[in-house]
Amino acid sequence: MPAICVDLSIKARWIVPMTARNRVLEDHVLVVHDGRIVDLIASKDAALRYLASVTLERPQHVLMPGLVNAHTHAALSPLRGFTERLFSNSQLRPESVRDGIQISIAQMLKSGITCFADHHFYPDTTARVAAEQGMRAVIGMPIAEFSTPWARNVDEYLTKALNVHDEYKGHPLISTAFAPFGAPTVPFSAPTVEDATFRRIVTFANELDAPILIKLHESSAEVTDSLARYGVRPIERLQALGLLTPALNAIHMVHVSPSDIDLAVRSGISVTLCPESNLKLGNGLPPVALIVASGLTIAVGSDAAAASSGQDIWMGTRLMALLSRTNSDAISSASPWDVLRIATRGGAAALGLENEIGSLEIGKWADLCCMDLSEPATQPVYDPVTQLVFSGGRDLVTDVWVAGRHLLVERNFSRLDWPSLAARSDTWAAILKAEG
Amino acid sequence: MPAICVDLSIKARWIVPMTARNRVLEDHVLVVHDGRIVDLIASKDAALRYLASVTLERPQHVLMPGLVNAHTHAALSPLRGFTERLFSNSQLRPESVRDGIQISIAQMLKSGITCFADHHFYPDTTARVAAEQGMRAVIGMPIAEFSTPWARNVDEYLTKALNVHDEYKGHPLISTAFAPFGAPTVPFSAPTVEDATFRRIVTFANELDAPILIKLHESSAEVTDSLARYGVRPIERLQALGLLTPALNAIHMVHVSPSDIDLAVRSGISVTLCPESNLKLGNGLPPVALIVASGLTIAVGSDAAAASSGQDIWMGTRLMALLSRTNSDAISSASPWDVLRIATRGGAAALGLENEIGSLEIGKWADLCCMDLSEPATQPVYDPVTQLVFSGGRDLVTDVWVAGRHLLVERNFSRLDWPSLAARSDTWAAILKAEG
Repeated sequence: MPAICVDLSIKARWIVPMTARNRVLEDHVLVVHDGRIVDLIASKDAALRYLASVTLERPQHVLMPGLVNAHTHAALSPLRGFTERLFSNSQLRPESVRDGIQISIAQMLKSGITCFADHHFYPDTTARVAAEQGMRAVIGMPIAEFSTPWARNVDEYLTKALNVHDEYKGHPLISTAFAPFGAPTVPFSAPTVEDATFRRIVTFANELDAPILIKLHESSAEVTDSLARYGVRPIERLQALGLLTPALNAIHMVHVSPSDIDLAVRSGISVTLCPESNLKLGNGLPPVALIVASGLTIAVGSDAAAASSGQDIWMGTRLMALLSRTNSDAISSASPWDVLRIATRGGAAALGLENEIGSLEIGKWADLCCMDLSEPATQPVYDPVTQLVFSGGRDLVTDVWVAGRHLLVERNFSRLDWPSLAARSDTWAAILKAEG
Repeated sequence: MPAICVDLSIKARWIVPMTARNRVLEDHVLVVHDGRIVDLIASKDAALRYLASVTLERPQHVLMPGLVNAHTHAALSPLRGFTERLFSNSQLRPESVRDGIQISIAQMLKSGITCFADHHFYPDTTARVAAEQGMRAVIGMPIAEFSTPWARNVDEYLTKALNVHDEYKGHPLISTAFAPFGAPTVPFSAPTVEDATFRRIVTFANELDAPILIKLHESSAEVTDSLARYGVRPIERLQALGLLTPALNAIHMVHVSPSDIDLAVRSGISVTLCPESNLKLGNGLPPVALIVASGLTIAVGSDAAAASSGQDIWMGTRLMALLSRTNSDAISSASPWDVLRIATRGGAAALGLENEIGSLEIGKWADLCCMDLSEPATQPVYDPVTQLVFSGGRDLVTDVWVAGRHLLVERNFSRLDWPSLAARSDTWAAILKAEG
């Protein structure tokens, strides 16, 4: 039988496909063609069956699905460190948005992230920059009752959301979601979107089969406020409005009661945890062990750069494993495999991309991350997944592919011009500092 | 005036001497001779005053005191990942001890750590390997009521402790401390050292002016057990035995009441927090904000590799900053400067080395760490200390000096032979797995 010509084959010491619990393959090859995974096969068979244009060996590495950063605000990276906690959007200069998104994409690629879900007031710019850089993104289309640089009122938000959705329909990298926003003056408020607006969002989301991304139960004040204003807890209000469907991704979920979690489970929504942000902003700790034990679909997000260590979810992933052990008498804690699944497949499922990315399966996009375990920090290796979760980090990432494109090549960007971007980053910092 | 000939001058973009809160120097040079810091001076003056054999420029870097890992068990690195939580000392093969210590030293140097305090049953080996590698170490001399590979009974433990102490008296890198050990069968027990033995330790420690390092209030079971056995809390028992002096470093301090903290403050002891270990082993969270607010001298430790991410205290340092915000209404949280101080000067003070290391001051040893902030993960930079604490990590470390010796040179080891050590590490892992 003649060999099949394909674009790429990658042989790694370990391949973690994230298809079955604790599955780690050795002596295997991942085969990629036209941006998608076409095979995952024993090395000896691969040599007979495939003739690849590019053949790579990563003899000390783990090859795994790229990580999914399920909640961020990419444009805000130039402001990280300017204030130590929250900053206001008014501090953001619109001219810096493009560079900010690129800085975030640079950080994400270097951390092994191949897909991010974004919330901000420049969704068209975020979509354009991500597509230019070859990065996968789920663009949250903001919907708010107040005016922002993006739109003046709900009608305009909805119209523009539909326009962006149509523009990227069928795009291999960009998809869209609805992202109702809270009041800008109350940092941790429940979304102050009105009932009628929520109902319109539900109708549109159903029609377009688009996810709805919403911050929920982030702070105790949000819960108190909802009880005072609506007589019910935030998640109950969303239930009454018909939002609690599998299309909903609820972000944060820190101040949740067991009955809130039950309601989330029964309605089939997914959740995105951002434990690093919750800690940094003083919002407390999500009940990780309870949420993991509930069986909910879980994703992990970095949140904005100022709310965490940057666009890196290794810390958040490890925090989930660690925090799930704080009450380990009562409930079983999250295993390394559980949390690595959250950072990959969980993110894909939470963003409605479970059939496209999140695991190494034939037919899915080749969104990949390769990590070197040969350095002192990760030696010796008994189980690569345990090592990645408890001792891993961005520094292990050597290669990243998105839809088969090799965007990070042995630690170097293939598309992104980091030196010139770093210089512009310095300039934005100087301007902000001068305005102080 | 003729120039003064010195060994080394280092110019870095930022120098953080850790002498005064928030002090960050630009356009400065650190001058080193005979292993010690001889000046920290404006660049323009340095050029006139000093002629250095080696002149280094680190134009995108922070130069700061090396980190101090105030609690670890260096020999245990080959076991990391073998079991996910605790492992028993019986799983450790004595033949692997030397390599294990070297692996830990490799991890520490790559993480910017220049000094560690060790607890284990092979203190002479740890001292010898550290000295060979040019690493600074405080060797905890174990004292236990039970037999170990090191000694059979208290008399022998004490005799051998004095022998090792004498052997390294005046050594530029190695100092010794007393390290009473708990029962091996009860992982988180209070030290089961008897009253009479404690009294002997106090006498010897006073005489030799040596620190006493002891795990304290690590688990709730330890507190319960002490109340049942002695009728007082663990720290109160130590008070009654005369141990609560500035020579005592109490490690962990997770299950502490406000009155325990008061007692610690009044007696002038120091504490070492190991939050990553506490979380991983399911012991809960130390009250970081309370402890920081108390004014106690605080250090940070990695604990054994299996109890954390390895011999790296960046995660523990960031965790302290984050965890201090969990109840930020009540008490002010730890600033980035506070926690970076803990990881450097705090560690030095806790180990009785406050006059030797921990800050960049004339006369102190040149124990230094240099970190590159030019990568996407840390751009832009408003304040290098904030950036290091919230976005830093081992991957930023480019150079490390201990007593003026350049042990890590632009990310490469100058003494340690990592490839051959990595191969031996693989061998130990294979042996353990086969036995497993």
